[in-house]
Amino acid sequence: MKTYNIFTDQEDSLPEGKADFLLAASVTKTCEIEGITQAGIPGKIPLTPTLDAEFIVDEKVYSMPELAETPTGVPTPALITRAVHNLNPFSSMEILNLGLESLPQNSPLINFDIAPSNSIDKGAGIDAKEIIRKGMKFGREYELKGSYLILGESTPSGTTTATASALALGYDLREDFSSSFLNVPNDIRVKTIDNALNFITKDMDNFEKLSHTSDNMLLFCAGFILEASRRFHVVLAGGTQMAASLLIADALREELLMRVKSDNITLATTAWVANDAKSDIKKILAQLSYTPHAIYTTFSFANAEIPVLKKYDDGEAKEGVGAGASLAYANANKVKNDEILQNIQFMMYSL
Amino acid sequence: MKTYNIFTDQEDSLPEGKADFLLAASVTKTCEIEGITQAGIPGKIPLTPTLDAEFIVDEKVYSMPELAETPTGVPTPALITRAVHNLNPFSSMEILNLGLESLPQNSPLINFDIAPSNSIDKGAGIDAKEIIRKGMKFGREYELKGSYLILGESTPSGTTTATASALALGYDLREDFSSSFLNVPNDIRVKTIDNALNFITKDMDNFEKLSHTSDNMLLFCAGFILEASRRFHVVLAGGTQMAASLLIADALREELLMRVKSDNITLATTAWVANDAKSDIKKILAQLSYTPHAIYTTFSFANAEIPVLKKYDDGEAKEGVGAGASLAYANANKVKNDEILQNIQFMMYSL
Repeated sequence: MKTYNIFTDQEDSLPEGKADFLLAASVTKTCEIEGITQAGIPGKIPLTPTLDAEFIVDEKVYSMPELAETPTGVPTPALITRAVHNLNPFSSMEILNLGLESLPQNSPLINFDIAPSNSIDKGAGIDAKEIIRKGMKFGREYELKGSYLILGESTPSGTTTATASALALGYDLREDFSSSFLNVPNDIRVKTIDNALNFITKDMDNFEKLSHTSDNMLLFCAGFILEASRRFHVVLAGGTQMAASLLIADALREELLMRVKSDNITLATTAWVANDAKSDIKKILAQLSYTPHAIYTTFSFANAEIPVLKKYDDGEAKEGVGAGASLAYANANKVKNDEILQNIQFMMYSL
Repeated sequence: MKTYNIFTDQEDSLPEGKADFLLAASVTKTCEIEGITQAGIPGKIPLTPTLDAEFIVDEKVYSMPELAETPTGVPTPALITRAVHNLNPFSSMEILNLGLESLPQNSPLINFDIAPSNSIDKGAGIDAKEIIRKGMKFGREYELKGSYLILGESTPSGTTTATASALALGYDLREDFSSSFLNVPNDIRVKTIDNALNFITKDMDNFEKLSHTSDNMLLFCAGFILEASRRFHVVLAGGTQMAASLLIADALREELLMRVKSDNITLATTAWVANDAKSDIKKILAQLSYTPHAIYTTFSFANAEIPVLKKYDDGEAKEGVGAGASLAYANANKVKNDEILQNIQFMMYSL
């Protein structure tokens, strides 16, 4: 395992010391469009963030007999995050309920009175300003336990809403967002995104545009990092979705007269995202008004005894539930690739 | 001398300890409308904040042979502030150049690249968003020296622009702002304000409305307190103008998704303002979405040997250059009315 800077390809690292872990768990009903995502169990996709939350907190799932996995059987990246937590615990682990359909059991849950958002192809129907406000408030008030914060997410079909949000804000990034699929179902995505963009008119302000095209995770996190980055270092644990949240926060600087304190921000993702030929996180991040600190951590399932895990290395499932940042956290704390792999396999055998 | 709460009329006080003093010094060309203000030397009104700045810093005026005084001879309230500084020094004293026509000499001046604003009867022509942004930035960055901050102002004709700003934002406060006059020249004020309001249309946002009707002091201070109140206690040293700055900050909470941290705010004024029959600071403050801490300090020139000073007690000139808060600061530090009076008279004899 090594951690590299996305922009320079030089070796890099997360800050030293213990980190808090927050999971921004959210449902956009966009995920119910057939074939749009494989982040979860077919027919039960909205349960994915609930199961991810339960699993990283307690190494168990309560709301379903089995752990979320893709139709081809690739298990959730929550396994990576939990393995890292087993080997080098986070200082805390809490779940942000940003619109869940069912509440995770036995989890330290923070509620914000946010409902799941509508499918963007019918207009997301979010009060973007209100969700951003809630994120900002939490960013002002969150009490850090460790020395910095890792903010992960679980939002099925979130790369679709991320693309729609970026396009709605005027960024030319139609082809640059990642997908949980190896072979992206482009027709469905494109149609969904175009339907969402049809709700946008030129005279709308950015809040209105996002109200139609975005999801609660992206908006809440954008608000959160605007405020939290003024107080402590925030690691955005994710790939192109978290990059979209940075885009949103940056785009709103004109409305809010406020910027992300960019020297307190790191985006940390997996090598599977950073090296993905079908998306371009570097290009997305290059749209920001500043150059963000952005890193990825190499990790391989090459030595896995459970064959399905090797599909990660093939590009099925690439990131999510804070996996990439967890690997960087593990690496900064001298945990080895093989230890994580063994821990993941042990958990899978135990399920 | 006693300090009272404006809302409860109970005895009250400023926080203990040393305070920094900042003077928000600004020119709106509204002050050149004949007869609109008596805060200064006729024909030289735009010099008033420059002279006030020089005087509180160095007890001298460099930019004119004489200290700013009204046509009836009432000298500037800067005398009160300086006397308090002589008797119980502020931890620092700096001048914010929020659009001065001439720079104060020998003064610690902080520049923000702000030009004097136009007369509001022709549209103020301010980029309100930019000025507020500058205030916010300064509020984030200002390094407190003492244990809290006193923010005073010198802006001739500022009660006229304050009224116009409040009305532009939709507050029903046409008759509630103070004036430096004993007998307010209502015709000129009303006409000026109405001309300013003619620039406003319903579809403008609050920033646009303020761009036409406000002044740089009000806008900068509104931005400043939004940010600074999150970091330390800010005493708004003034009467109805500072109350208008609070109104502006409060009205912008919908745009900026940000509120003044109201428990870090005190408005401190004179008894001449608090008890003024022709204005109603309590009513202005009651429009806020929170109840602010607001105080006034009694002080009297009754024993003055220099007769013109007694005009303050009659209601000619009531506040400005941080006089009211300076009295509260003096009171909190056991300085007596008579000591201040003697110090003022000594300064006047020496000029």
